[in-house]
Amino acid sequence: MEENQIKKLLASIAQGEISAEDGYKKLRNYPFESVEGFAVLDHQREMRTGFPEVIFGQGKTDDQIVEIFLRLKAKNPNVMASRISAEVYARIKDRLPFAVYDSMSRILYTKEKDGSIPGITVVTAGTGDIPVAEEAALTCELMGNKVQRIYDVGVSGLHRLIHRLDDVQQSNVIIVVAGMEGALASVVGGLVQCPVIAVPTSIGYGASFHGLAALLAMLNSCASGVAVVNIDNGFGAGCMASRINQLAGR
Amino acid sequence: MEENQIKKLLASIAQGEISAEDGYKKLRNYPFESVEGFAVLDHQREMRTGFPEVIFGQGKTDDQIVEIFLRLKAKNPNVMASRISAEVYARIKDRLPFAVYDSMSRILYTKEKDGSIPGITVVTAGTGDIPVAEEAALTCELMGNKVQRIYDVGVSGLHRLIHRLDDVQQSNVIIVVAGMEGALASVVGGLVQCPVIAVPTSIGYGASFHGLAALLAMLNSCASGVAVVNIDNGFGAGCMASRINQLAGR
Amino acid sequence: MEENQIKKLLASIAQGEISAEDGYKKLRNYPFESVEGFAVLDHQREMRTGFPEVIFGQGKTDDQIVEIFLRLKAKNPNVMASRISAEVYARIKDRLPFAVYDSMSRILYTKEKDGSIPGITVVTAGTGDIPVAEEAALTCELMGNKVQRIYDVGVSGLHRLIHRLDDVQQSNVIIVVAGMEGALASVVGGLVQCPVIAVPTSIGYGASFHGLAALLAMLNSCASGVAVVNIDNGFGAGCMASRINQLAGR
Amino acid sequence: MEENQIKKLLASIAQGEISAEDGYKKLRNYPFESVEGFAVLDHQREMRTGFPEVIFGQGKTDDQIVEIFLRLKAKNPNVMASRISAEVYARIKDRLPFAVYDSMSRILYTKEKDGSIPGITVVTAGTGDIPVAEEAALTCELMGNKVQRIYDVGVSGLHRLIHRLDDVQQSNVIIVVAGMEGALASVVGGLVQCPVIAVPTSIGYGASFHGLAALLAMLNSCASGVAVVNIDNGFGAGCMASRINQLAGR
Amino acid sequence: MEENQIKKLLASIAQGEISAEDGYKKLRNYPFESVEGFAVLDHQREMRTGFPEVIFGQGKTDDQIVEIFLRLKAKNPNVMASRISAEVYARIKDRLPFAVYDSMSRILYTKEKDGSIPGITVVTAGTGDIPVAEEAALTCELMGNKVQRIYDVGVSGLHRLIHRLDDVQQSNVIIVVAGMEGALASVVGGLVQCPVIAVPTSIGYGASFHGLAALLAMLNSCASGVAVVNIDNGFGAGCMASRINQLAGR
Amino acid sequence: MEENQIKKLLASIAQGEISAEDGYKKLRNYPFESVEGFAVLDHQREMRTGFPEVIFGQGKTDDQIVEIFLRLKAKNPNVMASRISAEVYARIKDRLPFAVYDSMSRILYTKEKDGSIPGITVVTAGTGDIPVAEEAALTCELMGNKVQRIYDVGVSGLHRLIHRLDDVQQSNVIIVVAGMEGALASVVGGLVQCPVIAVPTSIGYGASFHGLAALLAMLNSCASGVAVVNIDNGFGAGCMASRINQLAGR
Amino acid sequence: MEENQIKKLLASIAQGEISAEDGYKKLRNYPFESVEGFAVLDHQREMRTGFPEVIFGQGKTDDQIVEIFLRLKAKNPNVMASRISAEVYARIKDRLPFAVYDSMSRILYTKEKDGSIPGITVVTAGTGDIPVAEEAALTCELMGNKVQRIYDVGVSGLHRLIHRLDDVQQSNVIIVVAGMEGALASVVGGLVQCPVIAVPTSIGYGASFHGLAALLAMLNSCASGVAVVNIDNGFGAGCMASRINQLAGR
Amino acid sequence: MEENQIKKLLASIAQGEISAEDGYKKLRNYPFESVEGFAVLDHQREMRTGFPEVIFGQGKTDDQIVEIFLRLKAKNPNVMASRISAEVYARIKDRLPFAVYDSMSRILYTKEKDGSIPGITVVTAGTGDIPVAEEAALTCELMGNKVQRIYDVGVSGLHRLIHRLDDVQQSNVIIVVAGMEGALASVVGGLVQCPVIAVPTSIGYGASFHGLAALLAMLNSCASGVAVVNIDNGFGAGCMASRINQLAGR
Repeated sequence: MEENQIKKLLASIAQGEISAEDGYKKLRNYPFESVEGFAVLDHQREMRTGFPEVIFGQGKTDDQIVEIFLRLKAKNPNVMASRISAEVYARIKDRLPFAVYDSMSRILYTKEKDGSIPGITVVTAGTGDIPVAEEAALTCELMGNKVQRIYDVGVSGLHRLIHRLDDVQQSNVIIVVAGMEGALASVVGGLVQCPVIAVPTSIGYGASFHGLAALLAMLNSCASGVAVVNIDNGFGAGCMASRINQLAGR
Repeated sequence: MEENQIKKLLASIAQGEISAEDGYKKLRNYPFESVEGFAVLDHQREMRTGFPEVIFGQGKTDDQIVEIFLRLKAKNPNVMASRISAEVYARIKDRLPFAVYDSMSRILYTKEKDGSIPGITVVTAGTGDIPVAEEAALTCELMGNKVQRIYDVGVSGLHRLIHRLDDVQQSNVIIVVAGMEGALASVVGGLVQCPVIAVPTSIGYGASFHGLAALLAMLNSCASGVAVVNIDNGFGAGCMASRINQLAGR
Repeated sequence: MEENQIKKLLASIAQGEISAEDGYKKLRNYPFESVEGFAVLDHQREMRTGFPEVIFGQGKTDDQIVEIFLRLKAKNPNVMASRISAEVYARIKDRLPFAVYDSMSRILYTKEKDGSIPGITVVTAGTGDIPVAEEAALTCELMGNKVQRIYDVGVSGLHRLIHRLDDVQQSNVIIVVAGMEGALASVVGGLVQCPVIAVPTSIGYGASFHGLAALLAMLNSCASGVAVVNIDNGFGAGCMASRINQLAGR
Repeated sequence: MEENQIKKLLASIAQGEISAEDGYKKLRNYPFESVEGFAVLDHQREMRTGFPEVIFGQGKTDDQIVEIFLRLKAKNPNVMASRISAEVYARIKDRLPFAVYDSMSRILYTKEKDGSIPGITVVTAGTGDIPVAEEAALTCELMGNKVQRIYDVGVSGLHRLIHRLDDVQQSNVIIVVAGMEGALASVVGGLVQCPVIAVPTSIGYGASFHGLAALLAMLNSCASGVAVVNIDNGFGAGCMASRINQLAGR
Repeated sequence: MEENQIKKLLASIAQGEISAEDGYKKLRNYPFESVEGFAVLDHQREMRTGFPEVIFGQGKTDDQIVEIFLRLKAKNPNVMASRISAEVYARIKDRLPFAVYDSMSRILYTKEKDGSIPGITVVTAGTGDIPVAEEAALTCELMGNKVQRIYDVGVSGLHRLIHRLDDVQQSNVIIVVAGMEGALASVVGGLVQCPVIAVPTSIGYGASFHGLAALLAMLNSCASGVAVVNIDNGFGAGCMASRINQLAGR
Repeated sequence: MEENQIKKLLASIAQGEISAEDGYKKLRNYPFESVEGFAVLDHQREMRTGFPEVIFGQGKTDDQIVEIFLRLKAKNPNVMASRISAEVYARIKDRLPFAVYDSMSRILYTKEKDGSIPGITVVTAGTGDIPVAEEAALTCELMGNKVQRIYDVGVSGLHRLIHRLDDVQQSNVIIVVAGMEGALASVVGGLVQCPVIAVPTSIGYGASFHGLAALLAMLNSCASGVAVVNIDNGFGAGCMASRINQLAGR
Repeated sequence: MEENQIKKLLASIAQGEISAEDGYKKLRNYPFESVEGFAVLDHQREMRTGFPEVIFGQGKTDDQIVEIFLRLKAKNPNVMASRISAEVYARIKDRLPFAVYDSMSRILYTKEKDGSIPGITVVTAGTGDIPVAEEAALTCELMGNKVQRIYDVGVSGLHRLIHRLDDVQQSNVIIVVAGMEGALASVVGGLVQCPVIAVPTSIGYGASFHGLAALLAMLNSCASGVAVVNIDNGFGAGCMASRINQLAGR
Repeated sequence: MEENQIKKLLASIAQGEISAEDGYKKLRNYPFESVEGFAVLDHQREMRTGFPEVIFGQGKTDDQIVEIFLRLKAKNPNVMASRISAEVYARIKDRLPFAVYDSMSRILYTKEKDGSIPGITVVTAGTGDIPVAEEAALTCELMGNKVQRIYDVGVSGLHRLIHRLDDVQQSNVIIVVAGMEGALASVVGGLVQCPVIAVPTSIGYGASFHGLAALLAMLNSCASGVAVVNIDNGFGAGCMASRINQLAGR
């Protein structure tokens, strides 16, 4: 309910078109929606990105996933559920036959049209980082963006990255996905002008401590203009990149 | 430009089909721009932000700081050195009489004109977080931005933040600076549409472990669109925010 | 054996009503029972809460669980075993046919009547936190309390909590159950006057480090009046809340 | 603004007593006032505890402490600032001549009358834990409670605690302050029926890791009814205990 | 090869009974065996404890375990293999039909006679600690000692320990096995005069961090005369206790 | 108060020799005295070791140290205070003129006669470990033992240890003091039959993490018969060794 | 090569002073050799070691492993894939029938001839460390070296290592593989003159924290000339040793 | 005593030249001298490197440093003491007037001639890493090597490193010194064929955790041929590099 609607409502009451009592019922939920301007924002977000809400699949039961998916689908053409394992998908696919499952990123989704706003590049250090990178990339795409993927350009073979330098430098925002020592974020951060979102992955063993080594490295990046999300959080990096890219696209 | 292209180009020069000078122009961008493009970028960065390089004062001797400051000053109107303690400033101020020292943010700088690009808001949870927030804010300002400051709106008194909700929501990018449990980043992240940069601070004691608690909390934010920089890294947050804000301003 | 009983016993000896030898036998066990006043307390506890002892199911064999359950059942109408997985329950249910199993909280119990002392509210940040919350809530109920449940009101959508603010504020004690960054504890702690018990959960991934992020955040809460129990310790939070609520109810 | 007020307002509009436009202005701020109900609560808290706000002295400048102290003093007879070191006090005492400084707890305060609500006991393991214990105890007293102190009863000499068992068991709530291995919290928790608030201290060396050992021990207490606050957080324990004790005293 | 053997060897050479060359071959390995007096000690150890070497089963293949067991058995009546899971035992038992398997301690062994040197007491906090305690106790027994077991006397029910105080205090050495907060080690350490060996166990969850909480607590014990072994290291505690007890028994 | 005493007391009551009321008063403290058997033990400990209590100087004020020292001195010829820094000693020495200060071990003490029970050896890896070793050695001596010191025999020069192998192997108990990687404990543990007490020290830098590296190494010793005390805890190791050595000496 | 040099070179070509082909050769190395010199190096590496690239099998799908293996095989006689589990091998062996699988080291490889450069010794503390040691040893062999293996010579039985001292001391480089407390690296480091590469393994339990204890111990080695690779990183140690050994062999 | 000597001794006994008894006395000390072959090695090491022993100055008293320095000086022209702070040097310089102090590396030394074996390059990421780099470089030089220094070529400005690529690639061994995220080690490791020794430094703040971030990053390097020493351990890196370089120089 927006400002104008409230003004209209009060005018209707003033003009006797609706009773004070009925007006009260209409108003009752207003303050929460209004104060919590973000409730309104939720709809704005929906209009722009098509995703008022995303289902975090991990830790939810099959029934919960299906139910929420169907409820969201009833309101939006675009629905997205992250962290849906192949096992879960196998069990629920018959109940969500219209949904597309991307096994690499483990995202289950429906979408009306492809993302069209260019400007986001997703870069990975190794092959093992691709699932997280795809979670980020598909998140960006489902939120309306077009994504350039540059994979397997880790710092142990620097020429691979330098080969793609032009492509990298023409981005509005870059998502760097790397496990092990996570050095790629600093190297990319030093080569570009745009914001860099670093995603540490749990790829590695021993003293990688499930991604801690990459996380700490990225937080201590000597390159400025680098910010970090949680280990393996492709979705979060995608959201952040999409928000930034859409600022640029305004 | 591939091997064959270069060979062809050289053959054309040898055969007089194109002049050495024109050939040079074609070649010029090949190795340099492609490989070390960032060297060129450094100048572009300088043109736009006025800061081709920032002096990280911590761990440098007085002489090193003064010398680098003077060298940069010779090339740029705007020079910035971060992490200059009051003690260091007292010792070097006579040698850099034209520089301005901001004791709260511990930044020593010169600037030609005030930042003018609006869109960045810096928010703090408590009074103790202000020095880090000021490092972020002044960094943004020296890089050409105008900064809105909203301080001391931590989640233990939520009404303080909600009072300023409109101001917060009208930002292109928000820097949230918080120590202790760092909850403010998630709360702000849930209230806005724009990218949020979270800066954990070392404010706290005991199980804050010098900012680790806030850092982990921010990395695990349940709100999407939040990315994190190092503990107490106001400068890094400022750079990231400035990069994002200038995307929006293009 | 209480003070008066000892005095009476000694008087009986003085008056020759019982011999010194018989008196000694009666006294023999006195010091332990008395010094260990808590042995007496155990019975008092039983009288009030109906739970002199709770079976911690994790790490016990099927036989141990069944045997202790039956032994306690012989003395009390109310028996409670926590951390009984569905698999364990499936194997032992035929031997404890009178017991009720709650699969969400993983508690196996018998009770005579429903809890009736109002004043405890259990709040969760997300859906994934519900099993821990239910362990807390059912513990409270089995100890005689009535519980108000307010689930899925995490800080990334603050309006959900504010919607229920009145309900939250009318509690004697609130249990806040949250994983990830655990910010809900601070936000609730800042909105209420009553004691808040924070339960970090292991919900999350990466830098949540199995609940460490939420634990540290809750320990560093900027809101006063918040105390913390172990990660996923719904039972402990329930006990603490029940003790507090019954103080209020005296 | 309550329900009835809104209904009245709408009726006034319906009856033409106030215009729709003026009614809108009145409504506009309603949600904020309502949502921020806790702003009202702040005053309620003040009325009951005499402490609407406490100054956390650590990390504040002398001027900040003095200024906030004077501002609070203008509104309340009782003012309290924690973590005021002897050095800080020496510098500011002339500007706050009416304030009392307790060097053991490092609290600077004014109070009108002594706390009178009995029920809180503060227990310490060793002599080194007393400053934290006194921070807790004086916080309780300034919030209106009477405090029983039982110090230096650590588990390496268990008879010292058992000597005071009766005193301990007659409490509404017990604060256990212990460093090193923090075992006292579990021992006390097993001997009493009431809620126990455990405060780990940084007393120790080596593998105590500045209180981490005691903190982890207390979080893992085998006794139920124990909740934990941050390392050295006597103030937080005092607040929690006071909230609990005043529930009991209602 | 002992001193006398060398003297004899040299005499044989002097008397021409063996050639200098053959004597050299015999001597060649002498220095190592001799310098490494422990090689001799190994035999002494065998004579006293019957265990010159113990097989650490974890991480060994079935074949390795069987082969080493048989090799040791050929030389000694007593053989002992620790950390043999029930699954491993099921697979190898036909090849070691003479060996006894204790499923609680997961020790596979043969022994000629029961341990007879009294003086060791093994104490546990809870039921879950018993497997580790049994590893310690059976190790002691196989090394010739008689063991007193006092289980399930954790500090949350202090009367259980005090009931057994006399038994505890009459030991030469006490092994305290406890998980969770590990407080029992300090409490026992404060009640006895003899050396206490503390064994933290991985019993617990959440902030027990797989036994770290108990380990740190035990290392920080406020009671003197307590030393600690690795988490779940019942075998190590048993060895240490046996060495101490046999000193007492000399 | 023993069994016979109680029986006698009851008989006296039966015979009218003392009144029931007076008998009750005598009995009242019985359980505590009995349960607290260790209170009696304290005196036994005093008789044998001369040290019923040791003052832990760290964290105590000058006045507290002096006062407790004088109080203990009034009852015992032998008094010992550990962790007394040179600065503290300089301030208090005039008030304790009869006490001896050992600046290496930082122990302040009085003793009647030298320790005479042989069997304890203290070994260090490096020169930097000597202060902790001396704390252990002097503790042992003050408790009646004679100590053999073998310093600076770290594993990087193994021949130094092997030179002293005979001396090492003739001990009842060995204290190994080592920082950095703490490997000496395992090497010694593999060379001897007797119990080994390992003391990690904070000697080192970087990834020694203030002794954590040595602590972990010692806890994971591949040699059996090794138990560990807290980092830098020479006193604790000395107590443990003394308890063990006196068992051997019985 | 600077701008002027390039201009001159092109002018020379234009003037026919040097041919286009020779000019290309001069230019060829300018960008690539200067910048990506390593691309050329890659071929040199291939020529010498036969391994321009190694497949890290962990985290790759069966198809990825097979495809890369075949692609590399087409170019080189020697191909190597590490971290291939027995399960993976069983599934892919029919598609790579020419490849040899070593189940201990989990390496899948083809090779033309045996390694022939002596100088590398691989030492392990225990039996459990052998798989990591074999990964190192086979890596060295596939890279052209001959390897001496000395296994199961941990410090708890020092005579085993001393027995093999001569063999150890005749190496160019030694790889020490050890879990638990990792002390063997320091002991070997103190006995030899050549570089020592320490490989911590995850062998151990409890406070070994999956190899952390050994890692920290090795990093803090009191012996100079020791450097460390990641936990369980036999491959990395093998590469490093091979690089060093081939320096010696030049 | 070498093999031949023993053979001769036995032959003398066989030939009756010396008695079996006298022969035994000669033999008795043999094993120690032999086993400790490394004692001989110490002299070999001295002959080649001029440094049989290095004084680790940290934690030693002034007197200890001077005394050991003089003792070593009596035997060798080259003496080296590391970690000598400027304060220590100021106090002892009059007693060691012949020694040279390098304030950057904090090394105090004497040397006869400059190092002459080329092949070692020391690279740093930043200016703050130079003191550690100089400790490494001077150690190498004192051990006979010539060192190439390439400083301030961190990955945030990759062109600086690439500018020096030829110089870097012509090394036998490279020491990479870097703090913060330590990425330079991986980048250099990917660009060269020779062994790389990575030295993490404590340069950084916040989540660098005093060098832990760089340490973990370097241990997880995606480049093969990289091994790591302790944080800030320039000396250790120098020793390792010298050992490797001298292999190459044989």
